[in-house]
This record gives sequence, C-alpha cells and structure tokens, in this order.
Amino acid sequence: MKVSDVDFSQYVVSLARGVLAGLGELPDPETNQSVKNLILAQHSFAVLKMLAHKTEGNLTSDEHHLIQTLIQDLEQRMNTQSK
Amino acid sequence: MKVSDVDFSQYVVSLARGVLAGLGELPDPETNQSVKNLILAQHSFAVLKMLAHKTEGNLTSDEHHLIQTLIQDLEQRMNTQSK
Repeated sequence: MKVSDVDFSQYVVSLARGVLAGLGELPDPETNQSVKNLILAQHSFAVLKMLAHKTEGNLTSDEHHLIQTLIQDLEQRMNTQSK
Repeated sequence: MKVSDVDFSQYVVSLARGVLAGLGELPDPETNQSVKNLILAQHSFAVLKMLAHKTEGNLTSDEHHLIQTLIQDLEQRMNTQSK
C-alpha cells in the first residue's frame, strides 16, 4: 500500500481550519453552512499548541512562522468569541 | 475560553485508531460496524510518520516508544491488507 507523505504545513493549516470551523467562521464546504462547535475548536487549537511545543527546534523558519502566526490569530478569535 | 491541554500520547493513539478504523479493523463505536476507508487509513498513518519525524529529540522515551511501536505495527497491518 503506497502511503503519500503528509506535509507539516498542510497539516497545521487543516487543524487551523478545524478551529475556524468550530468557531463558526468557516462554512462546511458541502453544506455551505457554518455550525459552531466550540469543543472542536478548542480541541484543534490545543493540538496546534501541543504540536508547536513538541516540534520545537525541528521546523523550518517558514513552518515555525506559520504555526506561531496561526496560534496567535486563532487565540485572538477564540478570546473574542468568549467575551 | 479555557483550552484543555492535549496530550501527545493520547493524540498519537487517536491517529492510530484512525488507521485501524480505515483498515476496517476497528468498528465505529456508534454503529458498531467496520467500514473500510483506505484513504483515511493512509492519511492517518502518514500523519503519524510525519509527527514522528518532526518531534524527533523532543519526546520522552515513553512517547518515542509509543509512536515507533504504533508505526511498526500499523505498517505491518497495512502491508498485509495490500497483499
């Protein structure tokens, strides 16, 4: 069974999309509807933070910049929603 | 918004369950039916391999052992299925 590689940056972006979807800021591509699911948002965000920590020192500068920028941006959105 | 931590080992196990589910070896807990989805199996397996690579040197020995053992076991299962 051939296994295609998974790219770190693409994976990180897919997790970030999970956060946005959970915050109701990204419609489901199939239904075109936004469904808020804060548990999903929190979980995907926590995975991003765990990955940033566990991959420290092993990322290219682009990858590092991407994950840090996404975490900052998503953290702000989550804080805004919880106010 | 409070964000609970995600544990690396738990996350790795959930990815491994995704591989097993995709191979049809783990029934869906809701329907109790096994549905083979090799694309899902391959994707989750590729994520595990990418994470093993990107977290190199940052894992505890338990975490390292866990992810390496899971990858070896799942690789064998995937090779068996593709024969």
